[in-house]
Amino acid sequence: MDFLHSNLIYIIPMLGLIGILVMIGKSRWVSRQDAGDSTMQELAGHIANGAMAFLKAEWKILSYFVVIAGILLAWSGTLSPYSSWVIAVSFVIGAVTSAFAGYIGMNIATKANVRTTQAARTSLAKALKVSFTGGTVMGLGVAGLAVLGLGSLFIVFYTIYVINTNGDINGLEMERALEVLAGFSLGAESIALFARVGGGIYTKAADVGADLVGKVEAGIPEDDVRNPATIADNVGDNVGDVAGMGADLFGSYVATILATMVLGREIVSDDNFGGIAPILLPMLIAGLGLLFSIVGASLVKISNENGNVQKALNVGNWSSIVLTAIASFFAVNWLLPDTMVIRGFEFTKTDTYLAIVVGLIVGALMSIITEYYTAMSKRPVRSIVQQSSTGHATNIIAGLAVGMESTVLPILVLASGIYGSYHFAGLYGVAIAAAGMMATTAMQLAIDAFGPIADNAGGIAEMSQLPEEVRGRTDNLDAVGNTTAATGKGFAIASAALTSLALFAAFVGIAGIDQIDIYKADVLAGLFVGGMIPFIFSALCISAVGRAAMDMVQEVRRQFREIPGIMEYKAKPEYNRCVEISTKASIREMMLPGAIALIVPIVVGFSFGPEVLGGLLAGVTVSGVLMGMFQSNAGGAWDNAKKSFEKGAHINGEIYYKKSEPHKASVTGDTVGDPFKDTSGPSMNILIKLMSIVSLIIAPHINVNKHTISSKQAKPKTEAFQTATSRQNVTNTQKYDL
Amino acid sequence: MDFLHSNLIYIIPMLGLIGILVMIGKSRWVSRQDAGDSTMQELAGHIANGAMAFLKAEWKILSYFVVIAGILLAWSGTLSPYSSWVIAVSFVIGAVTSAFAGYIGMNIATKANVRTTQAARTSLAKALKVSFTGGTVMGLGVAGLAVLGLGSLFIVFYTIYVINTNGDINGLEMERALEVLAGFSLGAESIALFARVGGGIYTKAADVGADLVGKVEAGIPEDDVRNPATIADNVGDNVGDVAGMGADLFGSYVATILATMVLGREIVSDDNFGGIAPILLPMLIAGLGLLFSIVGASLVKISNENGNVQKALNVGNWSSIVLTAIASFFAVNWLLPDTMVIRGFEFTKTDTYLAIVVGLIVGALMSIITEYYTAMSKRPVRSIVQQSSTGHATNIIAGLAVGMESTVLPILVLASGIYGSYHFAGLYGVAIAAAGMMATTAMQLAIDAFGPIADNAGGIAEMSQLPEEVRGRTDNLDAVGNTTAATGKGFAIASAALTSLALFAAFVGIAGIDQIDIYKADVLAGLFVGGMIPFIFSALCISAVGRAAMDMVQEVRRQFREIPGIMEYKAKPEYNRCVEISTKASIREMMLPGAIALIVPIVVGFSFGPEVLGGLLAGVTVSGVLMGMFQSNAGGAWDNAKKSFEKGAHINGEIYYKKSEPHKASVTGDTVGDPFKDTSGPSMNILIKLMSIVSLIIAPHINVNKHTISSKQAKPKTEAFQTATSRQNVTNTQKYDL
Repeated sequence: MDFLHSNLIYIIPMLGLIGILVMIGKSRWVSRQDAGDSTMQELAGHIANGAMAFLKAEWKILSYFVVIAGILLAWSGTLSPYSSWVIAVSFVIGAVTSAFAGYIGMNIATKANVRTTQAARTSLAKALKVSFTGGTVMGLGVAGLAVLGLGSLFIVFYTIYVINTNGDINGLEMERALEVLAGFSLGAESIALFARVGGGIYTKAADVGADLVGKVEAGIPEDDVRNPATIADNVGDNVGDVAGMGADLFGSYVATILATMVLGREIVSDDNFGGIAPILLPMLIAGLGLLFSIVGASLVKISNENGNVQKALNVGNWSSIVLTAIASFFAVNWLLPDTMVIRGFEFTKTDTYLAIVVGLIVGALMSIITEYYTAMSKRPVRSIVQQSSTGHATNIIAGLAVGMESTVLPILVLASGIYGSYHFAGLYGVAIAAAGMMATTAMQLAIDAFGPIADNAGGIAEMSQLPEEVRGRTDNLDAVGNTTAATGKGFAIASAALTSLALFAAFVGIAGIDQIDIYKADVLAGLFVGGMIPFIFSALCISAVGRAAMDMVQEVRRQFREIPGIMEYKAKPEYNRCVEISTKASIREMMLPGAIALIVPIVVGFSFGPEVLGGLLAGVTVSGVLMGMFQSNAGGAWDNAKKSFEKGAHINGEIYYKKSEPHKASVTGDTVGDPFKDTSGPSMNILIKLMSIVSLIIAPHINVNKHTISSKQAKPKTEAFQTATSRQNVTNTQKYDL
Repeated sequence: MDFLHSNLIYIIPMLGLIGILVMIGKSRWVSRQDAGDSTMQELAGHIANGAMAFLKAEWKILSYFVVIAGILLAWSGTLSPYSSWVIAVSFVIGAVTSAFAGYIGMNIATKANVRTTQAARTSLAKALKVSFTGGTVMGLGVAGLAVLGLGSLFIVFYTIYVINTNGDINGLEMERALEVLAGFSLGAESIALFARVGGGIYTKAADVGADLVGKVEAGIPEDDVRNPATIADNVGDNVGDVAGMGADLFGSYVATILATMVLGREIVSDDNFGGIAPILLPMLIAGLGLLFSIVGASLVKISNENGNVQKALNVGNWSSIVLTAIASFFAVNWLLPDTMVIRGFEFTKTDTYLAIVVGLIVGALMSIITEYYTAMSKRPVRSIVQQSSTGHATNIIAGLAVGMESTVLPILVLASGIYGSYHFAGLYGVAIAAAGMMATTAMQLAIDAFGPIADNAGGIAEMSQLPEEVRGRTDNLDAVGNTTAATGKGFAIASAALTSLALFAAFVGIAGIDQIDIYKADVLAGLFVGGMIPFIFSALCISAVGRAAMDMVQEVRRQFREIPGIMEYKAKPEYNRCVEISTKASIREMMLPGAIALIVPIVVGFSFGPEVLGGLLAGVTVSGVLMGMFQSNAGGAWDNAKKSFEKGAHINGEIYYKKSEPHKASVTGDTVGDPFKDTSGPSMNILIKLMSIVSLIIAPHINVNKHTISSKQAKPKTEAFQTATSRQNVTNTQKYDL
């Protein structure tokens, strides 16, 4: 039995390492591909430099943040017996790893884009291979670093805090090891916040700015080399859709595994077969998912020009999911004891496996529903197309209605998922369901990152004025990329929701409370305030895009005015100035929303105690999930309603094309949807996760201070909604006093 | 002491009767005013007939509903020892009273409109007097019927269930009396749902339909007599803004008083000075507020053409609020014992008074904040005007951002209000704060109803082609009416929120649970599902307006095509056809949202038990309040951004007028905002109140069935998030078993 333990704990980081080695191999393969002629290389160089310029500017700001937050964490870590200053080290490693994962993705995406364009001169199959391999590098990089990082740090902290102290594997010592490990997740999620929000502002400021002056005022097409903002626009695709999405899923992946480990600690008992197995299981499943993502990725290929790209992606995706599901069955059976108990809830290892299956089903359903609401041929998008015939306003009304309606099924699925996974395996079930769903993150990200690479490849083909057939092939890939972008967002928000719930469950345990009773006036007030935060966060993100786009518009107008010969291709625009504007604006504008997400839980937690903080978190999660779906799906639906006009849209028996009045109305919808689907909508994921993880980190500290608050509450004046006779929560809070 | 009781219980309905007598006097005065020339009378006749046609069609459908729901209620009432079949009688009386209140408002509004137009030919002061007196009739009618109805029914049920049985004034007998009385509130709120939702769909279908064909296609001005939909549009102002708002506030008023009475029962004890005083207090405060609303209304007047209409309204409003606050102080001191205890929370009568003051402050702040976010000269609306310069899309983005941002301060005020009123007087404090805020409903409604009367008066002036100066005076009143409409909506949603909280508190007591723990998986799932309901409800309302407006567009186009001579004033359009279309569409489209609000709590309550239902209610309330504010304020801000162009809007140093490009963008925003601010936004009020009151009504029945559910939950498999050791909620559920 000991033999299994000692091996398993080392097997996990090895799985991560395998992912990274495969990634390096694939990355080298992409680099070796032909990067095309000098024009293409020059344009790609601009994009790559712009992307790096953004990353560097972002890193500079973030390094201050990491240092300051690290010092605060180290200081606070020394104050509690359930933490340590080492949490700061863990935090810095998490932040650096997340930044490094973003770098890997950005780097490969800016190499793969131009090589995909060049490959598209030969065949569609080749272009798919290059672009999807680029995506795979990103996926394996993110998942590999996460498994390697978490796995190695766990060995270190387990050794320091548990083995070296002869500590209890389900007691205070292990709790401390996991609390310190939570710093890794906080670091990752903090970087994700800035990457997602900053990246979202960057990409839409450039996009909207480029369109407003280029398309509307100057009358030149999208991705025209004469538009000074076009490079910034293409950089934005990488910054927002590659680095932002990557950081988001990296954060979810790590946080889900961590929350499951924290809850797993409560199941551990010395007579378990496998000892600390419930803590290791989520990491092992992640490692298995990584392995089978490699297998699945190798199946993504088409044989000729008529091959179905979407089908190829689906084959790869489902292979990795099914293989992981099968492997998890054996892992669960091998590792877990026959029956376990968590907080009075008894369940078997088969129950645990069924909870994982619930998670997989939830993930799959969420993607399918999202696709329905944003796909071109389906009722929701068609209703927007239809209503575009009576003008801008009815297009907007239709899109808003579709977005709101699109929350219904996902919420019912999510609620059933919570109910079902809890039904099988209690709190551990909710967390392990999330972990199961996230297991094939590497494959999901490969598919997600493939989209913007194909988008960029098309942009480079357009800017380099390559032949029609090349653009045709990149358009084919781009169209599939748009669908995967929508389903990817569905997956991302579902994962964020389940991750937050897992963190929420872990938080309650660590905070030493055993209920969050919204019948108490202060907890209910917390619920209201929490529900409001996604609204102000969205408002800030949306206004930020508006302001930054205005800056961009001014600059593009200035260049058209002051640089003679741009329109005749005689002078080159100053691309760098536009890249700089987007970079500066995004860094400036992400500060306030970022601060809200980080500071609110700290202020509420320390002022009102853990139960009010729990109410706040529930409010943020419910409202954030709803607003995220509403905005992302409305944006996606508007986008595809606009795209419907490219090949001719049927409205009341007539066919309308681009430049018709209904098409103009649909462009308005698409522009409104841009910040919805690429800035504020996806930011909700990070918001809800980050606020939960901050709460988890501060939970032991609030608990220590809690005694003063609860003694104040004991006086009738400030006692909460509940009857005095039922106040018996003392037992659990005392467990730290040993 | 007994002398005081016996008098007090009869004084309350007398106060309601006084309100109704004054109303009859004022109504006669309005009827005696000059109704103008034959053209004006004909137009006004069309509007009045259209409004009555809608009311009749609505009543027909609702009578089926009332009969079926009444039978179900009577049957279910016999099943529980805490209810009776008499609840059905109470329900029918509530429904009929609410419908009658709507009729009074509609009737006087359709008389006052044309008389205001005629008065505006003489002077502004006269026009204000006529229009505001019309509003006062509505306000006094609603509040008078509520106080009279509740007060009389209470006497009846108190006599039957408590006095005649020699029952306990704080025991089962009084509980049954109040449960039966709750039927009155359910009846009122059910009618309010259909009036608000149906009215909201009616008014916007007519408005959008009239504008799309009339203004945009045919190029004729608003309120042009040649437009077949113009009568329907003016009817809509009465149906939506008068009857809908009236029914909404009637419902809030009744529900708040009732919830406070239900909680007051728990304070009653035989040794109290005043006996059942805590039950009577909310009715007494409402009666006092009604009296002082009459005083305040008499102060609303201006002396000459330069008089400030807004100031006159403010003087009346604040007078009634301050006088009611002072009178409440004496009432509280006179009635309540020195100290009381509710569910272990001890408080004094001074604390009770302070809770009332908290309610008054919350109401005032909500109105002020709403005005800030929707006023023409303030930053939010200016930002929308500014962003209109770059097109339709940026106007929409700016409006959405303003709407989202506008939730922040109201939620903080509301959360502080919950916290503060609870801090002073526990649960009773939360409810009595709501009652305090609602006390001057008569005055609030008078101000609210004045707006659409002035709007209609302006429409009649335009359609009758009266001189410029007449239209100038009605425009003056109309502009003030727009502001009061916005602040009225702020008040309505604040009152709905506090009412729902009071009902929520009452629900928990009756359902026999003593907590709603969102850390339980099923309760959390309920919270998610509840949060989603306002989204689907809004989506249904918005799409309904879109569909109904399309019907209207087809009909107006048909009339322009098939009736020759309309455009030359030679033939009259068939106004009735448009009125019919709006009426049918609104009746048809209100069914599904109405059914959701009524059925969901019943299904969830009986399937999952009271605690999950509590989670659902909390989700609906938080999300509904947020969505209500977001949509109402965004709509109000878009409306005033458009109005800013009428006198010339400054953007980047240039002045833009009507028909400029930025103005066209602002019209798009206003059209999107129409269903937001007049259909889906205000419907949120009813949604959250109705779901709470349905829950309150079914609470005793769920409680009876609850034993089976909790015994099922005792098995580990289905036990919820909580630790087994803390499950001690039994004490409270047993109180019904005596």
